[in-house]
Amino acid sequence: MKAGPMELGEGKSSAPKAAVNRGVAILDFILRILAFIGTLGSAISMATTNETLPFFTQFIRFRAEYDDLPTFTFFVVANGVVSAYLLFSLPFSVFNIVRSKAQNSRILLIILDTAMLGLLSAGASAAAAIVYLAHHGNVRTNWPAICQQFNSFCERTSGSLIGSFIGVVVLILLIALSAVALSRRK
Amino acid sequence: MKAGPMELGEGKSSAPKAAVNRGVAILDFILRILAFIGTLGSAISMATTNETLPFFTQFIRFRAEYDDLPTFTFFVVANGVVSAYLLFSLPFSVFNIVRSKAQNSRILLIILDTAMLGLLSAGASAAAAIVYLAHHGNVRTNWPAICQQFNSFCERTSGSLIGSFIGVVVLILLIALSAVALSRRK
Repeated sequence: MKAGPMELGEGKSSAPKAAVNRGVAILDFILRILAFIGTLGSAISMATTNETLPFFTQFIRFRAEYDDLPTFTFFVVANGVVSAYLLFSLPFSVFNIVRSKAQNSRILLIILDTAMLGLLSAGASAAAAIVYLAHHGNVRTNWPAICQQFNSFCERTSGSLIGSFIGVVVLILLIALSAVALSRRK
Repeated sequence: MKAGPMELGEGKSSAPKAAVNRGVAILDFILRILAFIGTLGSAISMATTNETLPFFTQFIRFRAEYDDLPTFTFFVVANGVVSAYLLFSLPFSVFNIVRSKAQNSRILLIILDTAMLGLLSAGASAAAAIVYLAHHGNVRTNWPAICQQFNSFCERTSGSLIGSFIGVVVLILLIALSAVALSRRK
């Protein structure tokens, strides 16, 4: 809207703008590491979940593993893919710190971050829907809660969701930061 | 990277850039309407789903409604919220068509689009996880498939997912388009 005056003042304000952009890029780098740890932790935590019951129950199987439920397998894959992406995006993030005027690398990161946000959000909430069913069951559809039997299994799978949802929030922040940095680039 | 030459050529290339930005803004407007129709259709389709069985089965209830499963309620709410947001974002989209240099409205739209992408992706995939269970059940957790009994209920809920997943794809495209438009703004 104030394109005219802003363009005239471009030369004067380029130094503080570059500093702000560098700050945003460093924050971007730190947030990426945080999201990487969260999603990797979620993937490992879920993938190593299993419980063997020491006593006899009404179930035919007495052992619960994460891959008994396809949704949990998807959760592990989604978190694994996103954490691998976040690791490989770190060099681009460093590039953005060094070159605060970089444009194409920021656009690439926004688009890939958005795709990864969709994937991670899908995996986390699908797993959350199943964890909810495992805790509460559903009377109308005749699905019993399994957490009375597989208590530690349920606690572990519920805990695994946390890192994944932290990853979702951090990715939303990353996209917002990139959009702001992209608009400030001159 | 080529900031110097690009800044020098700014005056010459501003007219085609504005035209491209206007084209991107019009595409943005059309995609928003598409996503609005998809998510609204999903919400209405899911919210009106119910089936009363004409015969006696092993179930205690002989009537299935979408709100028997909390995940489907979340699906309806998520789709309702996103379709309402998309409707209210249309004036901003029109503003971007008229003012191709607008910056703040684009940043606002990117951030809100990203949040809505997270919400819609969560709702759609959580519902998909439940629909999968309804179709296939799960032997290990003793959850029976209910689609043999509630056939039309299952078909309707499965169909409702389509509009929602179209919405997810369109929102990813919208964010990518906004990022490109934001970087081209001069």
